[in-house]
Amino acid sequence: MTIVPESAIAELISAEAAFDAVEATFGAMARGDAYNFPVIREAIGHADALYGFKSGFDRAGLHLGLKSGGYWPGNDAKGLTNHQSTVFLFDADTGRARAVVGGNLLTALRTAAASAVSIRHLARRDAKVLGMIGAGHQSAFQMRAAAAQRDFEKVIGWNFHPEMLSRLEETAAELGLPFEGVELDQLGAEADVIITITSSFAPTLLDAHVRPGTHLACMGTDTVGKQEVEAAILARATVFTDEVAQSVTLGEAQHAVKAGLIDEADVQKIGDVINGDHPGRTTDEEITLFDGTGVGLQDLAVAAAAVEIAIERGIATEVAF
Amino acid sequence: MTIVPESAIAELISAEAAFDAVEATFGAMARGDAYNFPVIREAIGHADALYGFKSGFDRAGLHLGLKSGGYWPGNDAKGLTNHQSTVFLFDADTGRARAVVGGNLLTALRTAAASAVSIRHLARRDAKVLGMIGAGHQSAFQMRAAAAQRDFEKVIGWNFHPEMLSRLEETAAELGLPFEGVELDQLGAEADVIITITSSFAPTLLDAHVRPGTHLACMGTDTVGKQEVEAAILARATVFTDEVAQSVTLGEAQHAVKAGLIDEADVQKIGDVINGDHPGRTTDEEITLFDGTGVGLQDLAVAAAAVEIAIERGIATEVAF
Repeated sequence: MTIVPESAIAELISAEAAFDAVEATFGAMARGDAYNFPVIREAIGHADALYGFKSGFDRAGLHLGLKSGGYWPGNDAKGLTNHQSTVFLFDADTGRARAVVGGNLLTALRTAAASAVSIRHLARRDAKVLGMIGAGHQSAFQMRAAAAQRDFEKVIGWNFHPEMLSRLEETAAELGLPFEGVELDQLGAEADVIITITSSFAPTLLDAHVRPGTHLACMGTDTVGKQEVEAAILARATVFTDEVAQSVTLGEAQHAVKAGLIDEADVQKIGDVINGDHPGRTTDEEITLFDGTGVGLQDLAVAAAAVEIAIERGIATEVAF
Repeated sequence: MTIVPESAIAELISAEAAFDAVEATFGAMARGDAYNFPVIREAIGHADALYGFKSGFDRAGLHLGLKSGGYWPGNDAKGLTNHQSTVFLFDADTGRARAVVGGNLLTALRTAAASAVSIRHLARRDAKVLGMIGAGHQSAFQMRAAAAQRDFEKVIGWNFHPEMLSRLEETAAELGLPFEGVELDQLGAEADVIITITSSFAPTLLDAHVRPGTHLACMGTDTVGKQEVEAAILARATVFTDEVAQSVTLGEAQHAVKAGLIDEADVQKIGDVINGDHPGRTTDEEITLFDGTGVGLQDLAVAAAAVEIAIERGIATEVAF
């Protein structure tokens, strides 16, 4: 059994490698070669923790396994990350445990890769301004992955707590890009690509803010009740997602579906665009929106890539099992 | 993170240690201190494999985690066990991965421990004859665990393929007990305790076979459609189980419930007997029946015991994670 500890992930998996793994996964899902098993999510009644498993099988990549993930709000005070994730991979031919991989950084990378995949396949080629809504820990990963997809000239950002915008400014500086904190109407008026990465339960970006031709990647809504953008935007946009069943029940599309503005048939698989089975954006005026809900298969794919690279470089820990 | 490979389990966990772990788990479940999460079970469409996860949390024992388990019918030809199980334990206070434990032998031991717990708490004190129905791989584990619970003087057995009875004969000999292969009517007429451990989809033991005072442990039915004993036996018996929700839907009780012979309220928790909240058997004439469906918490409990003993003995493999 191969062990890849959390501390090794940063040197093993680049944003590019995560991109390739997630793009291949979305393609396999759309072809029916890969599917996610039901998600387990439990408030365990101890340490205020939320805990669960995302699992699945990709028969194209032969990725079988699960990510155990949880949220322990008391960890921060102990010097640990509140979100704790571990990925377990199995040999699809025998069922034997194959690898245990630290999943914290991988989760950040695969979530960032998903919005980057949507930008590569859906944003206008000439997109110049990247708009960021949300400035939490994950926002930096999203910005870095997005920056590689278009020749952005500027990043603009908004956050509920403006004092946190320094994170976006520093990340943009890393990427050699100017940054400006703006109001939401200016963000919608100037940005060609908008990434929302918040934990909001009410719409932040309104329909009136968004101009034709924009690509939106809504990455924060993964639970019933959460919402980042006004539902009317989804009625105007062509909506894409990683997994349709999640999108319409617990993703950003849940609200537009509940309001009768769109229905399940209006939500397209991003994998169909990757596979050439859907044209994606067809005009410069079209609004495209990617509802990134997050699936276990993304975790398996990036973890499998980490294991492969660790073995190639001879730095994997092998234990008798 | 602690690694306990499959090969170490035999020297770490005795039938007695498995008994104690499983008894404590059933007690915690009945007190509401421990619960199982929904079971994931998938035919993955590769290698004819069935794959899934059983998981849960015991806040009394602080056992949090899952058993990944699967059935790979082609493994035998490769010199591997068809059933492949691995247990993953997590720190309930932080969510960090704590241990990876080989789960094949543990699964056999915890299943045997469950019927042994039922015998300890429900069989007549003066039980002398143990009846075994089924002579597959698991039957030897069930017999060994059962033998420690009463002063049995004899084992009698029946199997659909009589040529396999040699397994029961050899196991009885190990235990210093005489063995006799018998027909089902004789088995019911002579046995004080009957363990059924088959993969049958039609009743083997009939109501007419079973005499008053018998304790039955039905251990083979864990799926909709499987059945080991005639449903009328459950109407005559006091029925106990590990988990009521599983018992009435996919355990042995499913058929009696479907036929309207008993309902969910007639199925008692074995944990209530362990905790002293149910009297268990009240007369020597009563038929008691334990419907052992198998729960993830059993796996977590025996795996946690294996980890604890491995650490005590200084033979656990610790890996940086």
